[in-house]
Amino acid sequence: MLVVRRTEADLKLSVRPTRLYDFPFSGNGYKIRLTLAYLGLTVEYETIDLLSGEASSPEFLARNPMGQIPVLELEDGTILRESNSILFWLTEGTSLMPNDRLARARIVQWTCFEQSNIDKVLGRTRFLKRYPDFMVTTSADWDQWYATGYRALDVMEAELREHSFLIGDQFSAADICLYGYVHCAGEGGFSLERYRSVARWREQVQKQPRHLLIDEVGTTFPPNLDGGRAA
Amino acid sequence: MLVVRRTEADLKLSVRPTRLYDFPFSGNGYKIRLTLAYLGLTVEYETIDLLSGEASSPEFLARNPMGQIPVLELEDGTILRESNSILFWLTEGTSLMPNDRLARARIVQWTCFEQSNIDKVLGRTRFLKRYPDFMVTTSADWDQWYATGYRALDVMEAELREHSFLIGDQFSAADICLYGYVHCAGEGGFSLERYRSVARWREQVQKQPRHLLIDEVGTTFPPNLDGGRAA
Repeated sequence: MLVVRRTEADLKLSVRPTRLYDFPFSGNGYKIRLTLAYLGLTVEYETIDLLSGEASSPEFLARNPMGQIPVLELEDGTILRESNSILFWLTEGTSLMPNDRLARARIVQWTCFEQSNIDKVLGRTRFLKRYPDFMVTTSADWDQWYATGYRALDVMEAELREHSFLIGDQFSAADICLYGYVHCAGEGGFSLERYRSVARWREQVQKQPRHLLIDEVGTTFPPNLDGGRAA
Repeated sequence: MLVVRRTEADLKLSVRPTRLYDFPFSGNGYKIRLTLAYLGLTVEYETIDLLSGEASSPEFLARNPMGQIPVLELEDGTILRESNSILFWLTEGTSLMPNDRLARARIVQWTCFEQSNIDKVLGRTRFLKRYPDFMVTTSADWDQWYATGYRALDVMEAELREHSFLIGDQFSAADICLYGYVHCAGEGGFSLERYRSVARWREQVQKQPRHLLIDEVGTTFPPNLDGGRAA
């Protein structure tokens, strides 16, 4: 039930992805990296330094006018933006994106839920704990982030108490999407201790074949093709 | 090119939608209403009064633990949440949701773009202009919303200068999604004067057969089934 059943050969991608523009610390980028790794795809990896403002360079804005990573470039020059959109493009036709109408709607539901309640909340607190000078925050901001974040974790816990994964018993793109920031929520100051089903789910995701950690990047992704994982 | 080519009969929905929980002022609800209308679907319409806190009632939280509208209930009791997820569920298999892998990824891209840069920005300014007591805001908040909102409108304008609609020359779920709040951005204090391609696009959306205005609701949706539009 845990194995991604199709590999690159089965993807029948008419156009191959060639290059990922990303910031290694980003959970949004990590969603794409995990998907590439699970599907056995390899791309060139280019770090866009968000801290030095590289995402606002004319060169990068030509790739994404909103100045956000990740961006995935395809061999024909097509540019894909928005992590959840890239996730859909990559997983279409694989077991990570079932054909069933309701299952697909549930995946969209979780990615929307993630965008507002996880990325902008758990992801933000983690970023600001690591880079506190990035923007001015107030204690009211933090109170609201923790309130929303714990409410979101409660919703996940309730779902995962009933099912192995977010859309039922099948590992899907929804799990990859939510894992991106939930697995490192502690770095943003969230205590995950009481979320036992979420903890069990995290372990299940980590057991996926070809799973990598968030900081395992190189000049290609996955890194160190001939020697396994990065040091 | 403007006509939604498939109607309810072609949808082959194995389960019919029966009831929409919504707040008439909401652009997120409006996305779903437009989709239902375009596809010739009728549901019971139940207003959840966001201002009196009805979205936090135990009864509503059982339908959506995040306390948000719209929620769409299906005849078998299935509950769909998140406007963009409902949009995907409804349009699957219709001309509003093409089968092409890249076109679908572009639709997801626009819905993600909308969620962060339109809903949370244009939608929010409009809500707070109408209901200023709903939450405390600072002038820095408004400055940031206008900066982000105009940047998002610039991105839309650039795209619509090249194409009739957001994913090319085909009217799709992406247009419905963005139309929800962009058509009423002026109510939030945005000036749309310089966005000529966006203006042309808005007119094209308004010409869709069975188009309704944002405040046209009743105890069913679409309202006034035997007499056309609501007064």
